[in-house]
Formats: sequence, C-alpha cells, structure tokens
Amino acid sequence: MRAVRVVGYHQDLRMEEVPVPEVSGPMDVVVRIGAAGVCRTDLHILEGQWEEKSGVTLPYTIGHENAGWVHAVGSGVTNVAEGDKVILHPLVTCGLCRACRSGDDVHCEGNRFPGIDSDGGYAEYLLTTARSVVKLDDSLEPADVAALADAGLTAYHAAAKAAKRLTPRDRCVVVGAGGLGHIGIQVLRALTPAELIVVDRNPDALKLALDIGADHGVVSDGTHIDQVLELTGGLGGEVLVDFVGEGGATKENVQMLRRAGDYHVVGYGENIDIPTIDIVSTEINIVGNLVGSYNDLCDLMALTARGAVTLHTQKYALDDFQTAITDLDNGRVRGRAILEP
Amino acid sequence: MRAVRVVGYHQDLRMEEVPVPEVSGPMDVVVRIGAAGVCRTDLHILEGQWEEKSGVTLPYTIGHENAGWVHAVGSGVTNVAEGDKVILHPLVTCGLCRACRSGDDVHCEGNRFPGIDSDGGYAEYLLTTARSVVKLDDSLEPADVAALADAGLTAYHAAAKAAKRLTPRDRCVVVGAGGLGHIGIQVLRALTPAELIVVDRNPDALKLALDIGADHGVVSDGTHIDQVLELTGGLGGEVLVDFVGEGGATKENVQMLRRAGDYHVVGYGENIDIPTIDIVSTEINIVGNLVGSYNDLCDLMALTARGAVTLHTQKYALDDFQTAITDLDNGRVRGRAILEP
Amino acid sequence: MRAVRVVGYHQDLRMEEVPVPEVSGPMDVVVRIGAAGVCRTDLHILEGQWEEKSGVTLPYTIGHENAGWVHAVGSGVTNVAEGDKVILHPLVTCGLCRACRSGDDVHCEGNRFPGIDSDGGYAEYLLTTARSVVKLDDSLEPADVAALADAGLTAYHAAAKAAKRLTPRDRCVVVGAGGLGHIGIQVLRALTPAELIVVDRNPDALKLALDIGADHGVVSDGTHIDQVLELTGGLGGEVLVDFVGEGGATKENVQMLRRAGDYHVVGYGENIDIPTIDIVSTEINIVGNLVGSYNDLCDLMALTARGAVTLHTQKYALDDFQTAITDLDNGRVRGRAILEP
Amino acid sequence: MRAVRVVGYHQDLRMEEVPVPEVSGPMDVVVRIGAAGVCRTDLHILEGQWEEKSGVTLPYTIGHENAGWVHAVGSGVTNVAEGDKVILHPLVTCGLCRACRSGDDVHCEGNRFPGIDSDGGYAEYLLTTARSVVKLDDSLEPADVAALADAGLTAYHAAAKAAKRLTPRDRCVVVGAGGLGHIGIQVLRALTPAELIVVDRNPDALKLALDIGADHGVVSDGTHIDQVLELTGGLGGEVLVDFVGEGGATKENVQMLRRAGDYHVVGYGENIDIPTIDIVSTEINIVGNLVGSYNDLCDLMALTARGAVTLHTQKYALDDFQTAITDLDNGRVRGRAILEP
Repeated sequence: MRAVRVVGYHQDLRMEEVPVPEVSGPMDVVVRIGAAGVCRTDLHILEGQWEEKSGVTLPYTIGHENAGWVHAVGSGVTNVAEGDKVILHPLVTCGLCRACRSGDDVHCEGNRFPGIDSDGGYAEYLLTTARSVVKLDDSLEPADVAALADAGLTAYHAAAKAAKRLTPRDRCVVVGAGGLGHIGIQVLRALTPAELIVVDRNPDALKLALDIGADHGVVSDGTHIDQVLELTGGLGGEVLVDFVGEGGATKENVQMLRRAGDYHVVGYGENIDIPTIDIVSTEINIVGNLVGSYNDLCDLMALTARGAVTLHTQKYALDDFQTAITDLDNGRVRGRAILEP
Repeated sequence: MRAVRVVGYHQDLRMEEVPVPEVSGPMDVVVRIGAAGVCRTDLHILEGQWEEKSGVTLPYTIGHENAGWVHAVGSGVTNVAEGDKVILHPLVTCGLCRACRSGDDVHCEGNRFPGIDSDGGYAEYLLTTARSVVKLDDSLEPADVAALADAGLTAYHAAAKAAKRLTPRDRCVVVGAGGLGHIGIQVLRALTPAELIVVDRNPDALKLALDIGADHGVVSDGTHIDQVLELTGGLGGEVLVDFVGEGGATKENVQMLRRAGDYHVVGYGENIDIPTIDIVSTEINIVGNLVGSYNDLCDLMALTARGAVTLHTQKYALDDFQTAITDLDNGRVRGRAILEP
Repeated sequence: MRAVRVVGYHQDLRMEEVPVPEVSGPMDVVVRIGAAGVCRTDLHILEGQWEEKSGVTLPYTIGHENAGWVHAVGSGVTNVAEGDKVILHPLVTCGLCRACRSGDDVHCEGNRFPGIDSDGGYAEYLLTTARSVVKLDDSLEPADVAALADAGLTAYHAAAKAAKRLTPRDRCVVVGAGGLGHIGIQVLRALTPAELIVVDRNPDALKLALDIGADHGVVSDGTHIDQVLELTGGLGGEVLVDFVGEGGATKENVQMLRRAGDYHVVGYGENIDIPTIDIVSTEINIVGNLVGSYNDLCDLMALTARGAVTLHTQKYALDDFQTAITDLDNGRVRGRAILEP
Repeated sequence: MRAVRVVGYHQDLRMEEVPVPEVSGPMDVVVRIGAAGVCRTDLHILEGQWEEKSGVTLPYTIGHENAGWVHAVGSGVTNVAEGDKVILHPLVTCGLCRACRSGDDVHCEGNRFPGIDSDGGYAEYLLTTARSVVKLDDSLEPADVAALADAGLTAYHAAAKAAKRLTPRDRCVVVGAGGLGHIGIQVLRALTPAELIVVDRNPDALKLALDIGADHGVVSDGTHIDQVLELTGGLGGEVLVDFVGEGGATKENVQMLRRAGDYHVVGYGENIDIPTIDIVSTEINIVGNLVGSYNDLCDLMALTARGAVTLHTQKYALDDFQTAITDLDNGRVRGRAILEP
C-alpha cells in the first residue's frame, strides 16, 4: 500500500510502498483510512522536535488523526466488525493498568501513539486495537471528523473539564479562537450556561467565535485585560481556558482570573512563572490538559453527530501530501487540512 | 485594657492602654482573649512586609490567632452567649456576598482581618462578629487551640482538599513537617487511608511525623527525590502537599509528582516556574491553598476535640510579649508560642 | 394596607386592611409587592392540609411566590437599597447554622416560610430579610418572575442537580411537562447536552416541550415505557426527573431508568414502594428534591435574564384574588396566575 | 479435578470429577484455587432462588469468592504470570462497553459471574480472565482474603461511597454489624473521620464493632431510634448504611437519617416503602449498592495488606464441603467459612 513516511529529520516526507498491516493479536483492528488530519505537530516531527521523546525508528508512517472503515479484526474483537465506519482514538492502550481501569486511559502506563512513535495514518491502512475505535454515527463521514481525533479531542477534554464547575452566573474566558479554540468554544456552548468571553488577536476569529456561541469577543490589542475585567465586574472569570500558552499569554491569564478560579493550560510554549504567594493569596488552580480519553472521544462524536460541533476542512488527495504540508506551513489552510487516500 | 500595638514598622511592639471594644452592630461579639498565637506573620508585619497590602493605620493591635470567652454580644447574635468558650475564625466576613453564600467565606468580597488590617488579639478583648466564633468543646481550652485559628486552619484546609481524591492505593507526599506540616500530617492521617511520605531536612521533625501518622520519613539530603520515586514505584505521589514553597522546593515537587497528580501549594516564597509543555504532557494540577473556611475550622475543632490533632505550645504571659517575639525570631520556640492575658 | 388573609380552613380567603410591616431587626427588608404567584399549594392551605405542619396562627396573609421593590431596609443591610427590584427566596433563613454556612440554606435549622407559616405576599408589602432578596436584572419585571420564586426554583434545583452527571451520550427522561416540568426542561436544555425525552399525557404539553428544547416527546398512553426503552437502546435513561409523583408514576419510573441511574423525586403524592433487592441489583439512586437555595435562585435569575427560561403568566389585580383562586382550582389558568397589587 | 457441583435444586451438592479448565482465549487465566468462601448466597442457590435469574445449566460448579495462584495464562495476558498469588473479582467483564471503559465494570453489559451462572471455585481450578485477577501482597494468603472477594467487596464499595461526603463533624449510622457490617465498619474507620454509630441486636457484635473502630454501639431493643437521635442532637445521621434490609429496618432507617442525608441500601429483603412527600420534604437520598468494582477490590486489598481490614475465618477441606454448608445453615460458623482444596 502507499504510505507517507518520515525518512529523516529536516527532510521532506516520502511516499513509499509498504505492506498492508495485518491482524496478529486477538484485539487487533486494521482500519482502511478514509481521512487523516494534517496537524502542526507533523511539522514539528519533521523539525526533529519529537525525535528524542518518541524514540521512533525511521522510516515510519506519519499521521495521528485518523478515521476510516474497519478492514479486519482479531479473534477477540466484539465491538466493531468489518466495514464499520470509525474514528480512532490517538492512543493504543493496554486496558489493564490502573489508569485504563479507571477510565483515564490517556495515562495508560503502556500506551503507543500511532503517527508519533509507530506507523500512523498518512497511508491506506493502519493497525490499531479494539480499544481505540469509536463507531461513527451514520450521519458522519471520516473526512468530517478525522481532525477531531486529536486536536478536537484535546479541546473537548479541556472544555468538558472546565465546564464541570461553571454555573449560569459564571464567566469563562477563552484565550485563543483558532484551531483548538473554536472547537473548545462549541463544546463549552453545548456543555455550560456560563457566559463565554473569547479573547483573540484576530477580529475574524472573534467573529466566528460569536457565531458559534461566544457571548463576547475581545480583541487582544493591549486593552483586552481591562476589557475582560470590565465584563466581569472587575473580578475576572471564574474559569479561563488558554489555547495559546505563548507570547506572554500565561502572565496575562492570571490577571483575567478571579480569586479561587481555574486556569486551564491547553496551548503551550512558554513557562508558567508565578510567585507562590500569588497562587496562595488568590487560591487559584492551574490545571493541565492533555488529549481526551476514549470516553471523551465518544462524547465528542455524540455532540458532532447532532451538529453541535462542526469543523471547516480543506481536503487533499493522499498523493498531494506535500502540498498539504506546505500549505499548512505557510498559513494557507483554512480550518484543518485533511488527506484522503 | 492592655493591648500590644504596632506603633511603627521596624520598631518594637509596645504595650498600651486602650478602651475595651464595645458591641455596636447587632451581630457584633466581643471576646475576652484567653490565648493569642504568636506567628511568623507577626514578625513580617513588623518588618513592614504587610504595610501596603493591609493598608492598616498605625497604631493598631496585632495578633490574628485568637481564642477566649464571649464577653458581650449584639442584639442579633443567636449562636453564642456570654461566657461561651470560643475560637475565632481569622476573618470577619459579610455573610451576603456570593462567596459567603456558598460556604466559601474565605473569599468574602468585604472581609476584615483582625490583627492584620484592624485590631487583633494581643490584648485583653477583641471585637469580632457572630459569623467568626466557633464554640469549643468542653474538653478544649483557648490556650490549646489558639494557634489552630490560622496556621492550623491553613494546614487543615489544604490537607482536607488534598484528601478528597486519595484512596488506599494512593501515595501523598508531604513536603515540610514543621509548624503547618505536622498539623497537615495529622489531618491527612485522620481523613485518608493513603500512604503518607513525609520529606523534611530535619530528622527530628521526621521522627515526630512518623509518630503522628506518617508511613515514611525521607530526609531531604539530595537523594530524597530518588527515595520518593523508589517508594512510589518510580512514578511519584498522586498528591503532593508543599508546606515549604522556597529554597528550590517547587522544582523538586514536580519531580516527585505522578502524571495527573495534584500539587498543593501552601508554603510560599519562590516562584512556580514550569514549562507549559510539562504541565500539559503530564496533565498535573497546581492547586492554591489559602486559609480554611468557617466550616473548616469547625471540622478542625471536631478532630481536635477527639484528640486527632494536637499541638505543642510554649506559653507566655501577655506582658512578656517581647520575649515571645524574640524567642520566635531566634528559633527558640518549640511548637507554637502563645500569649495569655 | 390591603392583604388577602386565611381566616379559617375550608373558608374563602378574605381581603383585610392590616398595618404595613415595619423594619425592626437590622437585617430586615420590607418589600413592596409587585407580583405574587398563585400556587396550587395555596389551595391545599385552604383545604387545611398544611394546618398541622405549618402551625400558623390564623388569620394570616397567604402567598409564597413574591417579587417587587425594596421599600425599607434595616441598619445592617448592605446588599440592597430602597427602590431595588427584587425577587424573594421563599425562606427566611438564619445565616448561622451549619446548613446556612454551607450554602445549603434550604435546610436552615431556624427558617421561616412567609405565606405558609407567617405573613406572605398577597398584599401590598411583605417583611423578609437581606438574606432572602435577589436583585433583578434591569430586563426583568416582578410580574415576569414571581412564579419562579418557588415553583420555578424547585424545578431549577432538581434540574441542576440532575444535570451534574449528564454527558452528551446520556439520556434524561423527564416525566411531566406541566408547570414545574416545563421550567425543568428549559433548565436542563441550558445546563446539559444530554438527550431529553419528555413523557406526558397531554400532547399539547409535549408540543411545548419540544419547542423549548426536548429532543423527544412521548405520550403516556400505556406504550410509553416501551417507547422510552426503544429510545434508550432498551436500557432506560441514565437520569429520570419525575415532576408527577402520583397516579402510578413511581413504579413506571423505575422501569425507564438505566442500571446505576438517578431517579429524581420532585412531584409527590404516592409512595415509593420498591423491593430493596431491585435497588441493590440495579444500583439505582432515588434522590429527593426540595426547593432550591438562594444560590439556585440567583442562577435561575441569570438564566431568565438571558431568555433561557420563560414562563407564561395570566395576570389578575390583587382585588381579583378570588377569581384567580377559582380559575386555578377549575383548571382555567394557562401557565401561572399572578396577582398584582 | 475435584469440583463441588449443583446437580439439582433442593438437593445436596455433589463432589464430581471434571476436566481442569483450559485457556482458550488470549485473555484467559486459569487459577488454582487456594480458598473459596462459603456464602449465604450458596444456600439460596440450592434453594432455587437464583434458578431463573442466573439461567445456569445444571450441573455446574458453585463458589463465587475465590483466591489462589495463577496456573495458566492466555497469550495476551500481561498483568499476571504463572505462580502469582491472586484474588478474583467476582465478575468476568468485557472491557469494551461504556461501563467497563468508565471504571464501572460492575455494570458491564456482557458480564459473567462464575459460581452463579458458570463454573465457580469450589474446585481445584477455575477459569477467569486477566481483567478479574488482582495480585496479592506478599503478606496475604488466599485463605485470608477469599471471603473478601464478594461479601467484603460489597461492604467496601458501600462504605467507600458513603465515606465520600463524611467530614469530622458528621455521624454515620451503621445498621448491622454482622458479616458485611463488620467489614464495612473497618473500611469506614479507615476512610473517614466521621463518628460511627453502630446499631445491632447482638451485644457481642456491638462489642466487636467498638473494638474495630465504632464510636458508639446501640442495641436495637426498641429504644435504638431514640438513642441514635440522642447521639445526633435529635437530627439523625448525615449518612446511614444499612447492611440488614429486612425485619422493618427500612422504616426505622428513615427515622435515624438527617435532612439531606444519604441512606445506603446494602442488605436486602423487604421493600422500601416511603411517601414521596417525605423524600421531598426532607430531601433525602436512597442509594443502591451492588458489589464493588475491580478498582474497589484493589483498594480493599491495599487496606487489608496493611492490617486495616481483618476477617475471622473457619477453614474446611474441600472434601468437607457438606460440613461447611451445614454449619453455615445452622449458624455454627463464626466469621466466614472457607474451603481449601
């Protein structure tokens, strides 16, 4: 089959012919890829940023946001059958460690991450397991949802955690209305009655944010902290979800957060650098957010099936992978780029 | 009455004769002080560290850890009567703001803090309100509990929050077994079945920690991170409560914390300075802890009444205030110093 | 002032001239009534059903759903001022007992219930306290919200508790789309992404339910249990909120509830009568729901101010109280009847 | 191998020679039984009470509380190896349904229950899966813990759920200090600082209860409701855990429960029969409790390994199964009867 492979860092990806993966274990599932999301992380992989962390042996097939159809299943697989339309949770997890047994499979002690540390989905087929496939509603197609498999799932996870404490009187400040942010806003709108105040540099992104459920859009032009304080009675939001995490955002976030508030870290880049006395005297919480669990992905698909979360996509044939990568790198992708084999 | 007053920063406290405070509002309560804790914060006040934050007008009476007997009550007070033995919550709160209405009175929008921003308890009498007095069990005396009113309450609050997620299989790392830490350890022991691993520089403090419920004591001698990792299967504790907050503790704490763990900040001094990518990739939470609520103080008194929390105290007559202050400053107080009028 | 009084059980209410209530305590608030809801409980009071429970001395002024303008305040009142537009929490609470200190003021150990056990709001003025008044948003008028003060608040409280565990994949069965039910549906729609399945005998009520956010309407015609099971994959809803509580509803509810489900009791009349083995083997929870707290009322007003909860009302002049009562008794009120002094 | 089989209802069990079970699926685990608990449910099975519910085909091997050593494992098993000492979770679960993915495997949609609906542990070997085995601490032996596999696990589950809301000021009423109750008391003591008030007919059981952590023992002699009310300030306990569920217990329980209290149903027999108005006006919760999850069993083993939960056992050789059964039926077993192959 065709597969787009990382053959070296600081080199272009290369299309190669490789064997179709086969079922060997009883819980194995081989998926015929219908769509694979092209993600900024893929650019970082090529730049070598993940070389040490992933420890992957080159060459390997890239692509960690995948959806398609079940092609073959192991003898122990009972939850899907050949032909089923599925989206793939990005991790392959063990099912037996304490984290897996607690529904918190993202922290599985023995996980594998196709597209990062083993063969991924810029290909015709991909090997995963029964634990990582979520059946799609009839109304959804692989190309519509593939980009939700990782980026969207991360936004869902953070938004759902943030929503747990939000009531009708609360204000949730969302920093960043880009790729992840605009999914997070849709999820927050579906899950909470709190007022949503969205901050972004880009007025167009704010316009979209207002269309999909934000109550207020604030251009981050230097007056934005004051504007947020004015919108929150001078106190800041009870919750803040930061999809940016760089360019000075972390210091600003604390100023837009109310006493006893939750500051959700999703975007990353710079350091959180705060005096402990400030954390203590305001009693704020800084909450880490990784990708969502299998259950989160099922929940996100339920929201998507009823139209509560939508995503703009720009489609490319698998053979045009280089164009997709280049477009992404040059900021020419509106929404998310998708490869279709 | 006699009252020990701050007459200027970087000056000694001075005993003065001032009028006994009187009930004016319907919820007012005047308490005859039985015991007042001498706290390191009192030293900081004299050094001027709180000058700007508190905005207090000098001279005023210092002392924010108070217990005694009800001397007089306003017309609307129904929960205590003259002669009742009480401990005082450190804050005087409004009862009407959203925080107060939610049981979270520590974040009261209109609070006052006797001993910090108004007259405190190094005196014969103190003015507070019905909302701040907790009746003591017959078995408890003001001098036994006064130091729990602020320091102990802070330790209780953090320990009780930390305990919420702890199960029999979890490990809780406690950093610092000093004044607050050894109360926190007792509270954790009473509230949770988790394994308690205590880290401190002082072997004597660790010996005490083991006596009052810790499962393991680890001397912080440079090998302590490795020791904690070894005690936790290489993973770190599910929860860490830091009563230190300075001298490099914050960086070490993160290394002793498990993925998805909670890091409770209680002690303060240095900055938390962590890459956002580390917060995200491990999905940890950094949790601020201020002093406890009125309910927390009631809970702490319940534990204390049944002997689950004890405190070593060193008593001084009110007239010997300067000796107490000097002893504290010179590290000559074992446990907590208490003034008795 | 004019006041509509209970002068005897099984007798008509009577308009009498009584003194305007006056502020005596520091936290007292006298409200000029703008609107008072006429509730089925008022009929039950006249039938003597509350005679023993309330222990009220006749004659007294009836009416427990009240809104209006602040007329006078005691010396300690800081949260409202003369002229403020307010809705009244139905209970007058102490603020000092453990329940009040925990935000759970509905279980205040020393509460009073104007309109039930002391003078209520079918009158020109009513005496309450600072703890029971919620300022209204500029966009809301007393007549629009008075009926939310008790009936609506009960529905909000149950719906908000129910919503806490509901996720996008869950199904919430709502039994009864009448007075309380149709508020509960609006609240659930605002607070949760779960699928809402509403069961009622009245097709018109179901039509309204679908208009205000229900996903499915099921006529309770004998096939409704099967229909609900079909809509829930044969398993029943994760949560069921029963606004009926009589006519056999309790037995049916259990059949429409999933294993480990929550069955919220709001409407009442008959007995819950279930074998303990069924409760154990399915591990269901039966959850009582009383009226909401002060915080619940604030939250409900926030939802109402943004149009998420609306209520159809039928207005009567205070002098026409007997018509309102008779109309209600004869089923001639659409929505809620409101008296305006 | 030898196996004790149900050959007909209302007949004695019979020892038969049957084949040793073999690993066929990849996740299968065959355990050499070290000890099997003899439970009152086994008597009920012989009386035919489970005939319809279980649908089991006779003959089959009885015994659902099992511990021993791993004898053989399937190709996919990674969490245990031959020779490991294990206790068995009573259910064999799928690992893929929503309940299993949420850590709530007790509600697995495709579970099997060895000893009830398939071959159990009154035998030399038993077939289970990797998902049901919990490795034992070196300090624990199969005979010490087998009876915790079902009865103990149920008590743990209820006690741990009950403990979640209990604070130092709360009172937990435990009804029944027999087999399950005395495990529940030990778990509550380990998990919560609340005051434990135990009610039982048997003064000896209460003596034991006080030895293992209860604060008060109340003989249920007709004055017990009054005694519990007196011990709780006339209000009842914030939580009540009922291990009895028959003989009028359910009606009494409600009288010993505080407003807004939780009533945990564990023991069963009679009906809960309560007016909905009482549930609503006191806002109590009736909480079902089934057996614990796999995680609960791990937690219980952690408590047991450190000596926080102990169990008196009376051992019998497997060949003496009939004596064990007869002794249990005649009330001659102190603690729990255990069969050892």
